[in-house]
Amino acid sequence: MGSVATTDLDVMAADARAASRTLARMTPAEKNAVLERIADALVARADEIVSENQADLLAAREAGESGAMLDRLLLDEDRIGAMADGVRAIAALEDPVGAVDGGRRLYNGLQVTRKRIPLGVITVIYEGRPNVTSDAAALALKSGNAILLRGSRIAERSNRIIVDVIERAIRECEAPEAAVQLLPPDPDRSGLMRLVQMEGQIDLAIPRGGEGLKKFLGEHSRVPVIYAASGNCHVYVDASADLDMALDITMNAKVQRPGVCNAAETLLVHRDVAAEFIPRVTRALRAEGVELRMDEEALGLAGGPAEGVVAGGEDDFATEFLDLIIAVGIVDSVDEATEHITRFGSGHSEAIVTSSTGAANAFDQGLDSACIYINASTRFTDGGEFGMGAEVGNSTQKLHARGPVGLTELTTYKYVVVGEGQIRA
Amino acid sequence: MGSVATTDLDVMAADARAASRTLARMTPAEKNAVLERIADALVARADEIVSENQADLLAAREAGESGAMLDRLLLDEDRIGAMADGVRAIAALEDPVGAVDGGRRLYNGLQVTRKRIPLGVITVIYEGRPNVTSDAAALALKSGNAILLRGSRIAERSNRIIVDVIERAIRECEAPEAAVQLLPPDPDRSGLMRLVQMEGQIDLAIPRGGEGLKKFLGEHSRVPVIYAASGNCHVYVDASADLDMALDITMNAKVQRPGVCNAAETLLVHRDVAAEFIPRVTRALRAEGVELRMDEEALGLAGGPAEGVVAGGEDDFATEFLDLIIAVGIVDSVDEATEHITRFGSGHSEAIVTSSTGAANAFDQGLDSACIYINASTRFTDGGEFGMGAEVGNSTQKLHARGPVGLTELTTYKYVVVGEGQIRA
Repeated sequence: MGSVATTDLDVMAADARAASRTLARMTPAEKNAVLERIADALVARADEIVSENQADLLAAREAGESGAMLDRLLLDEDRIGAMADGVRAIAALEDPVGAVDGGRRLYNGLQVTRKRIPLGVITVIYEGRPNVTSDAAALALKSGNAILLRGSRIAERSNRIIVDVIERAIRECEAPEAAVQLLPPDPDRSGLMRLVQMEGQIDLAIPRGGEGLKKFLGEHSRVPVIYAASGNCHVYVDASADLDMALDITMNAKVQRPGVCNAAETLLVHRDVAAEFIPRVTRALRAEGVELRMDEEALGLAGGPAEGVVAGGEDDFATEFLDLIIAVGIVDSVDEATEHITRFGSGHSEAIVTSSTGAANAFDQGLDSACIYINASTRFTDGGEFGMGAEVGNSTQKLHARGPVGLTELTTYKYVVVGEGQIRA
Repeated sequence: MGSVATTDLDVMAADARAASRTLARMTPAEKNAVLERIADALVARADEIVSENQADLLAAREAGESGAMLDRLLLDEDRIGAMADGVRAIAALEDPVGAVDGGRRLYNGLQVTRKRIPLGVITVIYEGRPNVTSDAAALALKSGNAILLRGSRIAERSNRIIVDVIERAIRECEAPEAAVQLLPPDPDRSGLMRLVQMEGQIDLAIPRGGEGLKKFLGEHSRVPVIYAASGNCHVYVDASADLDMALDITMNAKVQRPGVCNAAETLLVHRDVAAEFIPRVTRALRAEGVELRMDEEALGLAGGPAEGVVAGGEDDFATEFLDLIIAVGIVDSVDEATEHITRFGSGHSEAIVTSSTGAANAFDQGLDSACIYINASTRFTDGGEFGMGAEVGNSTQKLHARGPVGLTELTTYKYVVVGEGQIRA
């Protein structure tokens, strides 16, 4: 299929804007009714979804896609049930629209109330997982935003049928159908280029993808962007650490799910405990098949190079492996640890294991990462774990949203000022 | 002077980053001591500042600058005293750093605390008023941010001496001098171009300037931007309005200070009260020298074209006059008013005058502007009036900050998660 006509995008964005105005006024009960109907319809039409997904899978297999990619693409009855459950879970969350998060009475009697309102029109740019389609649509609807979904070509038929299910459910509830729209296929990114330059028409773009997509948006986007970021996360084992706890946290942060953004990529160990901890953690990580890339001193303490234990360098400290690989370094102090993390990190999630309040404070004060863990695993950086409900991604940027991007982060605020005729002197 | 060398900017940004790390750890008392010393030094060195300012004024006069520009540029003892008072007022505000604005205890006992931290390195890009130099520097210091000041060439010598005063005061307090730096002259915007592409080195750029600057940044900036925005603000007089109140609010919003972003640019009147209100408001506005640009119906009610009463069109509804000019239209309902404002407005500040709770709610619900006034003048959109203290500008964007951009808006947040060895299951 060819590139996306500009006019199509303009029409879709205008329809989305009109829908967003209606969405912004819908009550929580009205929005939840739509979400419940979507969840029911996903289950009721699971056969259709599986059938379209099978066509995507066949094409992907013929195109020589990897097994991991095929697994991400696959939808079966269980996964569709999980998608429906995800939509219901979003319906059950507190509605972010109208939440009052500030305000005061001014000297002249004016009552200022700061309350949250939807952003308007958002777009989510994502890759092969078709379950993102229903997740992102449900988060948008609940937060009162219209959404333009820009999925992967590989999941085109799966995404199309899921959006058809959603649109029909919206229509049956007499809500605005254009609230959820799937963008047409865009193999040469010309549509994406146009999309992210629609200033004033798109209020927020959320890319969920690799560094290539991030770079593309950095260069071309004129609409506000929240990057669902990569994470180069650290575990620092302080001189005063409980080493059993340090071992548990290191293993959990690295091994429990190595392919996600809140997994640890670097282990830093204070010199005072390195002689004891490095051999222990090396054995434990090797037993789980983790490759260790160590600085010179750590490598010496580990007994020198061996299978899966190699010399590492600055490149390794700068890398988000997303795999069973970890960089390891020795530091002299908590300050040296925070300097290392500041230099090489991505500002996502960093953990210290310590029994010293002074070290814990220095670690916190020395870092401006989104999430700082004192004696806990970095793996908790997640909207669900944080009690915020579902998330559309994790932000490492400093403006607007940091860490999990959930319902509240998909809203902005307005000031409503009520008076009795006050004028400015 | 020539264009700014890239290496200079890189060095300045790196110095600013290093300074920001120290600033982030300074206590409120330490930061306030710096601010008090800056205020004292501004007064003590007023003669030097006046002398440098006279040189700027002379050059500006010779270059044929307008009287309004010369007035904005002028610094005398009184104005320098006001600058010092402004810095002291910022010192007296509550410190935004460390403020806890959220958190909860998780199911597994983890204690999550969301607290505010500085952004890091910010840059403010501004025009001829040299008092912005001390205001912006003081806001940055108080919020724990390092700042790169990019002033106007016309105020170069004034800005340079003010920054010298600030840097010396910082040094005397043994705080990091590179916290406040003035960028070198940049007549061809090559330095600005480089500045706003320093991703990762600059955390926020705040332009205070016209549409040309906004367009330049929209095209070129790769660093996050908050536009200190223009405002096309509206006053809507509802069918149920108290017309005396409507007159007071309209006059205040238009006439009290017409050159600012929260002044009204359009008056919309409900048809039911137009026959009574239009002649009254026309007389009152004309008495203050305001030109009215009216739609056909309003013009008819005003008695037809006359001196300062002319036919207006869509261009007028779309214009921020920043002058003694107002566009006037008749509408049939509050919904027609909100549709008009959504179409032509800039999302800054809108007022309704009404005695109907239904109309007030419809006005609020129908608009996503930063500030909605029910029976009050739009002129209150201001950090000082809102009780937030000094502001660096007013934002009409939806991400991060809306309305007054004060100390809190110059910070971001982090999550600090404290545990006892929790790992993810």
